Order: sequence, then C-alpha cells, then structure tokens
Amino acid sequence: MQLSRKADYALRAVMHFAGLPKGKLASIGAVAKSQRIPREFLAKILKDLTWAGILISYQGVTGGYRMAKAAKDVSFLDVVEAMEGPICLNLCCEGDKCECEHYKGCKMRDFWIKQQDSFRKALSQANFGKYKAIFKE
Amino acid sequence: MQLSRKADYALRAVMHFAGLPKGKLASIGAVAKSQRIPREFLAKILKDLTWAGILISYQGVTGGYRMAKAAKDVSFLDVVEAMEGPICLNLCCEGDKCECEHYKGCKMRDFWIKQQDSFRKALSQANFGKYKAIFKE
Repeated sequence: MQLSRKADYALRAVMHFAGLPKGKLASIGAVAKSQRIPREFLAKILKDLTWAGILISYQGVTGGYRMAKAAKDVSFLDVVEAMEGPICLNLCCEGDKCECEHYKGCKMRDFWIKQQDSFRKALSQANFGKYKAIFKE
Repeated sequence: MQLSRKADYALRAVMHFAGLPKGKLASIGAVAKSQRIPREFLAKILKDLTWAGILISYQGVTGGYRMAKAAKDVSFLDVVEAMEGPICLNLCCEGDKCECEHYKGCKMRDFWIKQQDSFRKALSQANFGKYKAIFKE
C-alpha cells in the first residue's frame, strides 16, 4: 500500500514548477535532472499533468512547461488523482456497497471509508503554495 | 494506492475467525466459501497469519485454524503488516532521509510521515474485538 512512483514523481515535478519565478518555463530535461526523475517517464507525466489542467505546455525550441494556475490552487489531491484516478484505499470503498453482503453490520467498510475520507481531506488541504521547491542558491 | 488484495483477504479471514465461538476451528474451505476468497490464495494467507502468530493451525482430518489470542488483542495493523511488511505510504518515508537532499526545507516528506503516522495509528486502534464477523442466523 504505497503511493505509485508515478504520483510521487508528479508531486515532485509540480513542486518544482511551483517554485519557479512567475511565468518562467522549465524544460523536461531541467526537471528530470533537478528531481532525478527518468526523462521518458517524466515526459509522460508532464503530458498527463497538462491534460489535467495543472500545467501548460509551450512548444518550440524555447518551449517548456509552467503552472496553469496559482500554486496555492493546486492540491496534492489534484496531482495524485490525475495520476492514479480517484483515491480508493480498499476495493470495498468503490461503489455503493461492500461485496460481503452476507454479513449483517460489517463495520470494516466503514473503517476504510473513514480512512479514505481523512486521507483525501489531508491531500486536498496540502497545496503547492505551501509545498513549493526552495532551490539552493 | 490501495490495500493489496492479500491484506484485504487476510483482514476478512481474521474477522471470520474472530467471530467464531471460543475454541472452534474453521477449515480453509469454510473460510474461503464464507468470505469468497480463492482457496489456494487463502491457504497461503492462513500460513502467513500462523507464521505471524495471529492464528494457530491444527493438523489432521478434524484440523483447521483458530485465533492464537483474544480478538481484541489483534489489530488491523498486525494483519496488514503481516501481509505487506511495514506500512510505507511513500518511498521517501523509508529510512532516515529523503532522496531530494538538494532541496533545503522540503516539507513534502514531513507530510507523508504525518499521514503514515496517522494511518498506522488508526490501523493499530482497530482490533478484531470490535470488527468480528456477525454471521447470519
């Protein structure tokens, strides 16, 4: 039970963009090097983040990516769900009912729903205004 | 980011054993049927739960498994960690330091450590005295 490498890389990439001076672009190569993310994998991640409306892509020799909105308006939840789909801590949290319907009063699903709600809340409250990269001088 | 099927099945299996009358054994077949868990997979899970000291195994024709201790003394954390190893919500929670050492003051790891502590606490407080199966009459 662990965050995927893809989502972790995406969080670190967005943290990088959030720390850039306003309007400045960063290339895939620069983020890959700075964040130690495999370049090919990062290229796919940045495409997905652009598709999700978190980054904007600029084509051309001087192109690159930047945040599509203010860093404080992008949450960890936005990024994680853009990579992994809706948070679902256990299969029984999906849909309206537990498959263990042959039990009366199974509270296990309630436990997972509660953990999921709490985790989603924490992710939604963490935004990239707070969590931006502080680059070495 | 989801609990493994193995850990979910293990929780449901232990919930089953916790709901049995004191001293009563259940066979792999009975738990597999009741909890809708593939039998071969369940056999491996019950071995691992026995190895972890959560169940006791009795050999022979009338054999089976039962709880090794009181249901209230077995937590969700015991079962999940017996299946998946120590909870580690993100790779950067492992060990003493974050690999992003080129940043000063990265708070992202603190976020994950905090979520992990909170999740472990919830799992450790949920025990099978509270979460036992209530069988249909």
